[in-house]
Amino acid sequence: MLLERIVSEGLAHYSYLVGDRNLALVIDPRRDVDDYIKMAAASGMRIAHILETHRNEDYFIGSMELATRTGAEVWHADRQWDYQYGHAVADGQRWKVGRLEIEAISTPGHTPGSMSYLLRDPAGIAWMLFCGDALFAGEVGRIDLLGADQAAENAGLLYESIFSRILPLGDEVILCPAHGSGSVCGEAIAERLWTSVGIEKKHNPRLQAKSKEQFVASLQTSHPGRPPYFRRMEKVNLEGRPLLGAQPSPLPLDARSFWQLSLSQNAQILDTRQELAFSAAHVPGSQSIWLDGLASFAGWFLGYDRPILLVGEGNQADRVAAILLRLGFDNISGFLAGGMLSWHMSGQQSQSIRTQIVQDLCRQIDGGEPVWILDVRFAGELDKDGRIEGAQHIPITAISERMDEVPQDRDVAIFCGSGMRSMVAASYLRARGWKRLSVVLGGMAGWRSIKCPLR
Amino acid sequence: MLLERIVSEGLAHYSYLVGDRNLALVIDPRRDVDDYIKMAAASGMRIAHILETHRNEDYFIGSMELATRTGAEVWHADRQWDYQYGHAVADGQRWKVGRLEIEAISTPGHTPGSMSYLLRDPAGIAWMLFCGDALFAGEVGRIDLLGADQAAENAGLLYESIFSRILPLGDEVILCPAHGSGSVCGEAIAERLWTSVGIEKKHNPRLQAKSKEQFVASLQTSHPGRPPYFRRMEKVNLEGRPLLGAQPSPLPLDARSFWQLSLSQNAQILDTRQELAFSAAHVPGSQSIWLDGLASFAGWFLGYDRPILLVGEGNQADRVAAILLRLGFDNISGFLAGGMLSWHMSGQQSQSIRTQIVQDLCRQIDGGEPVWILDVRFAGELDKDGRIEGAQHIPITAISERMDEVPQDRDVAIFCGSGMRSMVAASYLRARGWKRLSVVLGGMAGWRSIKCPLR
Amino acid sequence: MLLERIVSEGLAHYSYLVGDRNLALVIDPRRDVDDYIKMAAASGMRIAHILETHRNEDYFIGSMELATRTGAEVWHADRQWDYQYGHAVADGQRWKVGRLEIEAISTPGHTPGSMSYLLRDPAGIAWMLFCGDALFAGEVGRIDLLGADQAAENAGLLYESIFSRILPLGDEVILCPAHGSGSVCGEAIAERLWTSVGIEKKHNPRLQAKSKEQFVASLQTSHPGRPPYFRRMEKVNLEGRPLLGAQPSPLPLDARSFWQLSLSQNAQILDTRQELAFSAAHVPGSQSIWLDGLASFAGWFLGYDRPILLVGEGNQADRVAAILLRLGFDNISGFLAGGMLSWHMSGQQSQSIRTQIVQDLCRQIDGGEPVWILDVRFAGELDKDGRIEGAQHIPITAISERMDEVPQDRDVAIFCGSGMRSMVAASYLRARGWKRLSVVLGGMAGWRSIKCPLR
Amino acid sequence: MLLERIVSEGLAHYSYLVGDRNLALVIDPRRDVDDYIKMAAASGMRIAHILETHRNEDYFIGSMELATRTGAEVWHADRQWDYQYGHAVADGQRWKVGRLEIEAISTPGHTPGSMSYLLRDPAGIAWMLFCGDALFAGEVGRIDLLGADQAAENAGLLYESIFSRILPLGDEVILCPAHGSGSVCGEAIAERLWTSVGIEKKHNPRLQAKSKEQFVASLQTSHPGRPPYFRRMEKVNLEGRPLLGAQPSPLPLDARSFWQLSLSQNAQILDTRQELAFSAAHVPGSQSIWLDGLASFAGWFLGYDRPILLVGEGNQADRVAAILLRLGFDNISGFLAGGMLSWHMSGQQSQSIRTQIVQDLCRQIDGGEPVWILDVRFAGELDKDGRIEGAQHIPITAISERMDEVPQDRDVAIFCGSGMRSMVAASYLRARGWKRLSVVLGGMAGWRSIKCPLR
Repeated sequence: MLLERIVSEGLAHYSYLVGDRNLALVIDPRRDVDDYIKMAAASGMRIAHILETHRNEDYFIGSMELATRTGAEVWHADRQWDYQYGHAVADGQRWKVGRLEIEAISTPGHTPGSMSYLLRDPAGIAWMLFCGDALFAGEVGRIDLLGADQAAENAGLLYESIFSRILPLGDEVILCPAHGSGSVCGEAIAERLWTSVGIEKKHNPRLQAKSKEQFVASLQTSHPGRPPYFRRMEKVNLEGRPLLGAQPSPLPLDARSFWQLSLSQNAQILDTRQELAFSAAHVPGSQSIWLDGLASFAGWFLGYDRPILLVGEGNQADRVAAILLRLGFDNISGFLAGGMLSWHMSGQQSQSIRTQIVQDLCRQIDGGEPVWILDVRFAGELDKDGRIEGAQHIPITAISERMDEVPQDRDVAIFCGSGMRSMVAASYLRARGWKRLSVVLGGMAGWRSIKCPLR
Repeated sequence: MLLERIVSEGLAHYSYLVGDRNLALVIDPRRDVDDYIKMAAASGMRIAHILETHRNEDYFIGSMELATRTGAEVWHADRQWDYQYGHAVADGQRWKVGRLEIEAISTPGHTPGSMSYLLRDPAGIAWMLFCGDALFAGEVGRIDLLGADQAAENAGLLYESIFSRILPLGDEVILCPAHGSGSVCGEAIAERLWTSVGIEKKHNPRLQAKSKEQFVASLQTSHPGRPPYFRRMEKVNLEGRPLLGAQPSPLPLDARSFWQLSLSQNAQILDTRQELAFSAAHVPGSQSIWLDGLASFAGWFLGYDRPILLVGEGNQADRVAAILLRLGFDNISGFLAGGMLSWHMSGQQSQSIRTQIVQDLCRQIDGGEPVWILDVRFAGELDKDGRIEGAQHIPITAISERMDEVPQDRDVAIFCGSGMRSMVAASYLRARGWKRLSVVLGGMAGWRSIKCPLR
Repeated sequence: MLLERIVSEGLAHYSYLVGDRNLALVIDPRRDVDDYIKMAAASGMRIAHILETHRNEDYFIGSMELATRTGAEVWHADRQWDYQYGHAVADGQRWKVGRLEIEAISTPGHTPGSMSYLLRDPAGIAWMLFCGDALFAGEVGRIDLLGADQAAENAGLLYESIFSRILPLGDEVILCPAHGSGSVCGEAIAERLWTSVGIEKKHNPRLQAKSKEQFVASLQTSHPGRPPYFRRMEKVNLEGRPLLGAQPSPLPLDARSFWQLSLSQNAQILDTRQELAFSAAHVPGSQSIWLDGLASFAGWFLGYDRPILLVGEGNQADRVAAILLRLGFDNISGFLAGGMLSWHMSGQQSQSIRTQIVQDLCRQIDGGEPVWILDVRFAGELDKDGRIEGAQHIPITAISERMDEVPQDRDVAIFCGSGMRSMVAASYLRARGWKRLSVVLGGMAGWRSIKCPLR
Repeated sequence: MLLERIVSEGLAHYSYLVGDRNLALVIDPRRDVDDYIKMAAASGMRIAHILETHRNEDYFIGSMELATRTGAEVWHADRQWDYQYGHAVADGQRWKVGRLEIEAISTPGHTPGSMSYLLRDPAGIAWMLFCGDALFAGEVGRIDLLGADQAAENAGLLYESIFSRILPLGDEVILCPAHGSGSVCGEAIAERLWTSVGIEKKHNPRLQAKSKEQFVASLQTSHPGRPPYFRRMEKVNLEGRPLLGAQPSPLPLDARSFWQLSLSQNAQILDTRQELAFSAAHVPGSQSIWLDGLASFAGWFLGYDRPILLVGEGNQADRVAAILLRLGFDNISGFLAGGMLSWHMSGQQSQSIRTQIVQDLCRQIDGGEPVWILDVRFAGELDKDGRIEGAQHIPITAISERMDEVPQDRDVAIFCGSGMRSMVAASYLRARGWKRLSVVLGGMAGWRSIKCPLR
């Protein structure tokens, strides 16, 4: 028997491979499907079915890719939309994999046609529920993705799905959601790596609502935002798309070719190094997104219409490409071979962005210096972790829309939880002309550690 | 946060690595501890505590090894015994690892001082219970290991532990036992890889007992037996033992050196190839235990007093040595380099054991041939999967004691579930003079597939 | 700088990856090209050129595959043939890779248009010669592959290439041929893993010829034969072929599906287990070729016109598929999941082939038993390692043509160097009706070890 | 047959594993010996002999470690010194490994008792020479390591060894030296990864000397210096030392523990990140040595008397520890878990070092700014790659002795080939009070690329 959770870091996306005897199925596969194929083959299993819990918006689903390479059948939830491949799932539909049985349970809300899948063990015991984006550890799925006008309706559907379909399955059933902590698909997913229906019933803050109305109302608060790339993911996930086969390796480029290509292709330059190295020197105009944050922020800061050139540390180009691939960014022109060292050795010019430690910022504030502080954290973090007196708040995901609020003629200290997102924002502004920027290292965590005054 | 189950195949032993922030703890480590150290380091965690659920009898615990290499503290359950290292755990004792907290809960029964450990998540939610050998998926721990005279008393303790301490924790708590299906520490552990308190409460056959008396009585049935090596494991697990450091690689030996060493050291020859290859040719006197069955059967068929020489396929000597190490068999003199091919190319003589397909056996029986059938399955399998008319039953683990019941002057067809254990038994008998043996390929599974008559 | 030899085991084929700074080239790539791409990328190099030393006949060249995935240019030797892709190389043509330079040197003989490539180091020193199939350690290339009628002419060309082009480069130049010991492309390639012009000049037996005539004459002796698949390789290597992308994983099949498919597709069953396991039990009709012998013998015993089904040990299906792929066998329908164990547990019938140790055969011969001995070694081995009195000699590669010489009504003992090829031959005959076969374990090596009488 | 070169990056040290049939030997093993053991076992070989070419000074030899774990015998060259374990080699001594034979050839010069080892193939052909530090690609061994007074005598010995013992073996013999390009054991080792006696005879600049006198004189030039740790390596390599067993994993430490430990243990802080990240922020007082330069510079900038604390990127602590281990630095107290990010998030203070691009430096010079340029390249590089007008030259390895020459009251621009060594020097000075430092990114390579004026 096989029961594997495959984690896509960054997206905090969980897909699952379930198998018994010679058969297996995959739930919500990601686009780079080698792992599923290898794991199943290593256990002597054939992947026969691919089940989707909903039309995904945050990543490029691998259903067609996996189906083409294994002969498996694709089963879509959200039958209301017009899929160009695969079959639609019906509530109550069942599949066998070896001695296991899995049953579709309609759980709309996150999307209007979301499905969950209940796994029964060889003795017929209701064992695990693959609940997609309906219910997470400590959170429920977002209901705002189809637009504000449908949010209330979806919230109501979600209430019914959770309270009338999922909770009655029994406290003992183990829950396998599609995301863990860190995903943009839930506002505050808890870090419990495994959870159960009963744990959520007792402890999930959303499920403590006293009524449907209260539940619906509680979901009307702010959300992390909807990255622009979601629109594209929704579309390609309906269409299916040309197949990958072997994952392409980005082409190494020397410094001169890199720069020429960046001009001739009007390419986007993505730098995935840590924030410190980026601050010291980077290719002019490049966008900083540190590797572990790439899945979360690529969709906000990269576009699909221009080729991408990569700058990174060591040999991370393949990993970067794999992450971008999951988000549908296939158009990678190459990477800077030898990194910034070879850039400088070729006599190319670079830029830097100033950093400062929190002690410096404290001193500036205490000394009454007129520093303009830009806080790019999410709204929820302000309440939870505290605010800095006088700081201006523009969430990282709103920078592109609201950058005009940031002055160009004053010193701007950018501030987030740790310094990583600050550099993302700083590089975005720097490439658009802002020059008097500094990134506060350690961010709010550092700030609190030294007990600077918090509002 | 880190929550890893480390599976020792064969033993079906589960140990766990739990960590948060910079700290980690390990529950019931196996003897080859590299994996724990590497996983923790990769997450930037220091292993600070080692918790044992009970004095183990089925494997050589790695507590001292891991403690020596990491500086962690060892915490023993079963404080009634005289440990020569580490500290004793008290009921209710607590440890912090980052934002997680874990609490000892006394759950005697399997051993008189067994402990379980309840893990609370950062929000203080009772999340997971590491319940050692108290409770498994579909089974409870064995209570017979300290002797038949204490079995009833232990069964009573176990009843209280499960019904008064574990079940009240709540249906939603996820259970992390020390063994999965295939272990000798529980008679009929189910294949549910993850389970919960509620699933066991509702579906574990042992827990459906109507009273303590009924529960105790239900445990008085036959058990898989107590392998002779348990005695040694109990002892070394109290003592702690000289440290491994790097795991030794068995020495390659050419055919001549192999044979000379087997004579001069009076060594045991262990052949871990699949049963078919063994049947065709093997070193005279060698004991067959196929690789995947090694952890289960080494303790029955190997002794600690004589060196071990290995015969295997390809480069499996390191894997074999790792498994033997977990059982305390450190005295490996080497392996046959080049395997049986080089044996024959050196002109060494080999032996074979006859195999037959089930159709042959059917024909013999139908034809009234006086074949003596030896069924080496466990008692429970006979009821579950059926018996063969006229077959003699000696469980594989009783062969050494009862071999005199097997005739030497008749054709003996040996029979198990698939043919693997039959070859273990056949090689044991062959090395002790039995010559008219054959192994039935496919065993009871094959027999049933072709619908031979079952009693 | 990068200089890697990539070995395709079995074929004993050597390809080379040479790089400096940001550029690399590959000489004679095999069809599964992932390794080249990964190694080059790990060194920050782009593969810019693919050089072929000749139109290969013993494997499916990966030039087009690699070119498509990297954008490299393909350069063919043997410009007299009609390639449907890539460019033709001219004698004296040069390429730069970083500070290295490589120059084409016309060295016909093995094929009429064979090229070697001389590598100069950054200081311009003649460093290494990639000499394809012109010259090997202890051997020269075969000149018989285009037909007996052209052999003498080719031998003359080869003499000139070696004596007038290669040897004058200097004793100190390191030689990098396209094959090592074990290849069918040279009769008796020595085991020297690295060699030099001077070593070959002094010690290569072929190069000790006193005249061109003597050299040509020395090459007119028997050859290992020309596997039927060579014809196909020559064709596809001119054509280029549909692309692989990701290497396909063979599909796992349960015993029943396997058998049904073998019937419905009229498939070839290939069993890659070691000879002992095969002897004990195998699927009726299956062809034995042990894994390490697969590259050498697949072209003799498998056809391109029928699908292939695999039986193996553990999870070797992927490795088997990779080897078959290099030979152009793409049509793999699946593998027997669970191997022979699951076959027997499903109640399927199997066959066996008798084995015997050399001592038995000795005894039979000494006892005057009328045993018909079939020796399947190559002609050269008979002279080198000795003959067995009364044995009939049919080389393994001639079995299919000459099987009628083998009696069906007598006991036939099959004999080779070790027992591996004997089983290949035995399985071939067994599938075609021969029943009284036995394979002599240890073969001539075992025979000599025990000092049985040799002719 | 097995012939593997094991490269220790950084040290550019080559050790060799040679095997045939069931036996193997290792030449000049490094201290972390797992690779030898695994490779040999994978080929079914037992390591029977360990041959040293000389008492090594640049790394901690693994002879005793490997001998203890495998039972192999250790053979020392340099018998004039007093080894506390193993045997001394005699000129002409021979060992068999399978069908191979290897013979000791006395080649003094680099040390007074250096040995080379000539490998003959199964046919008895002189095939390869393992020539230790006597002869490299494009260079000969250093003769200054025992002191200036013995240099001339050693140079004379080396001349005889090369001209009377090595060159007469024949141009065709392949050379396997103990070091490649980048080692401190030869001034200008060429990048030819493989070479031969003939290539060196024709092209090695040292071997073009017209007489012994000229050869000796040519070696009297400056050398890269003698790192202080050589003295210790010489000593431990005579003694043998306590055994490693499993390689220890450095302990993860949180920021506070790290800082406390650095104070309480008076530890050395080693930062192995790339120069850019280091420049932006580092723990006060830490020494920068980038990972790939660690083997070369650790012996110059770290001491054996104080514990070491590590700062690095990602999970490189294990790799850093492995490199330090080879140099005998066993006393590693731990590493900063979470790296500089966690440092700043804990509110710890950091320092930075200014960087500038070469264009900036040009502008300063052109503008007549009084910048004090410190060039830390080796003497040989100045001649080869050019000098900067007005720069002061202190080789990186002399910084600790000559730091007083660097002014503290002026802006100092530090300059090397690329910027890496500059940061090593800058961090050394910064930790000792210099504040007005900047590192020139791209170094001389960048400088030349933009055609700044060169002297």
